[in-house]
Amino acid sequence: MSVRPPVLVDIKFNPEGVDRVLKTAFADRGSINLADPANRERDFSETEYALLWKPDADLFRRAPNLKVIFSGGAGVDHIIGMAGLPDIPIVRFVDRSLTTRMSEWVVMQCLMHLRGQYGHDSHQRRREWAKLIAPEAAEVTVGVMGLGILGQDAVAKLKVMGFNVIGWSRTRKTIEGVETFDAGELDRFLAKTDILVGLLPLTPETTGFYDSELFKKLRRDGALGQPVFINAGRGKSQIETDIVSAVREGTLGGASLDVFEVEPLATDSPLWELENVFITPHDAAVSEENALFRHVEMQIARFERGEPLQFVIDRAAGY
Amino acid sequence: MSVRPPVLVDIKFNPEGVDRVLKTAFADRGSINLADPANRERDFSETEYALLWKPDADLFRRAPNLKVIFSGGAGVDHIIGMAGLPDIPIVRFVDRSLTTRMSEWVVMQCLMHLRGQYGHDSHQRRREWAKLIAPEAAEVTVGVMGLGILGQDAVAKLKVMGFNVIGWSRTRKTIEGVETFDAGELDRFLAKTDILVGLLPLTPETTGFYDSELFKKLRRDGALGQPVFINAGRGKSQIETDIVSAVREGTLGGASLDVFEVEPLATDSPLWELENVFITPHDAAVSEENALFRHVEMQIARFERGEPLQFVIDRAAGY
Repeated sequence: MSVRPPVLVDIKFNPEGVDRVLKTAFADRGSINLADPANRERDFSETEYALLWKPDADLFRRAPNLKVIFSGGAGVDHIIGMAGLPDIPIVRFVDRSLTTRMSEWVVMQCLMHLRGQYGHDSHQRRREWAKLIAPEAAEVTVGVMGLGILGQDAVAKLKVMGFNVIGWSRTRKTIEGVETFDAGELDRFLAKTDILVGLLPLTPETTGFYDSELFKKLRRDGALGQPVFINAGRGKSQIETDIVSAVREGTLGGASLDVFEVEPLATDSPLWELENVFITPHDAAVSEENALFRHVEMQIARFERGEPLQFVIDRAAGY
Repeated sequence: MSVRPPVLVDIKFNPEGVDRVLKTAFADRGSINLADPANRERDFSETEYALLWKPDADLFRRAPNLKVIFSGGAGVDHIIGMAGLPDIPIVRFVDRSLTTRMSEWVVMQCLMHLRGQYGHDSHQRRREWAKLIAPEAAEVTVGVMGLGILGQDAVAKLKVMGFNVIGWSRTRKTIEGVETFDAGELDRFLAKTDILVGLLPLTPETTGFYDSELFKKLRRDGALGQPVFINAGRGKSQIETDIVSAVREGTLGGASLDVFEVEPLATDSPLWELENVFITPHDAAVSEENALFRHVEMQIARFERGEPLQFVIDRAAGY
């Protein structure tokens, strides 16, 4: 049996976690961790698989014989558009845990807006006993944009909690019991939506997508009074100055943001102190290293057995 | 057809809402609303049905010929123990909407503790970007006390969100896929519980039930680090001085309280400002007047057709 070349690993997050898991991962072939200075000058010409998150700019030049690229997260926008990106399969990270955690965050944010958590919190700080009679979930329509694995899991759980849920995706998806819309029906979708949940990948079409014009198209006569914008997709899909003015003018009644145009969010951003806006620091769904490396090992095993890879992105669509 | 005597209504909540709905309720027999001063001195001796929430102390003396008592809420502790309470069926208010709303609140509070909402909120106010890596729901066990209609709905929804859920009730209930415990197994139940959700009715046994001794029996080596207490049952089931000291000493890592020993909660209660404690003013699940009156009309119609009443309480158990 020939010696298998090691897996190239260039992941720009949580170096301690990656280091810990690499001690036992890829036992049959080993790995080259670019975070280790000793590996900086090594020859990568024989490597066949690369696991990447925001890799070095010259990576594809130095590793010209890759067969498969694995993304360290659900998104691939950190790779798409890089110089020298070879025309080989790019596999997204899809993980039960990542999906579950994203839905925890989405459902919690929708419930906090439904149940007036911002108001309750303000009253608590003033030691004020003030009942808030919220509409029930069934009176509120949550519109989920992006109906991939994350979007479909969120849709299912929001429905169980009682929300009326509708969905939008570029090409129409059919989901039992959920009204769905496609690219040509965006305005109809927005006009029915009280809480907009953004789970879109970052592509040229979705860059700067959530803007003033879009917020104005959301339903204004719903049970919440004013519509709410929730984004856990990518920060560069939103125009933050538009979110700020929409909340200040009442075009939006509130927002929940886990992602931002530039991260970390600048200390002087007005978003931090806007009324009824919840900020989390891109931790809604964090890739867990153990699960990530098991996923890559499993996909390599499939590939080498001659079975099709799973979760390969559509290069033309960009996700 | 003989004239039917009007329904006696003595509901000490939201007089405007009751007044509005009474205009159209009980169209076949009318009603006597005790909130109206003009009715204070009327003769109630012929009334057969009474819809009550914290009724006047002399009510049963003045209405000696009642056939059925309807409670204005899910609980009946406001009636049980009243002087002159006749030995007739007492019907609780059970309503899909009330159940849904209670579960919204319970799931939201569990998620806020799981996902570190208190920490995120503190960071946001300080404009601080600080990722919190929370355990996922499956690593956390929610123990639900009280497995009636509200408890079972909460259990089902918490399971969908991914939590490990166990249940306790005085007499054992069997719920598919959920480990359940009965009165004799309380300590075993508590030792497995990271987040305790209280949905118990108020009875002599549950008065002052949630105290220091109980909090000390909750699991201390779980994924959250310290256990959390959530109560949406009845305030008189909890010892608030014990909650305060348990949170301050770290026996509890946090709490969510919708009910209190005395309501409204006193302005000088230390609960308002405890770390990781969420306070709501008994508005987790508010009886909606329309649904309440429709429910009573439906039960009266069943009763007069000779069918069994639904949701009759067990007088001996007190709920």
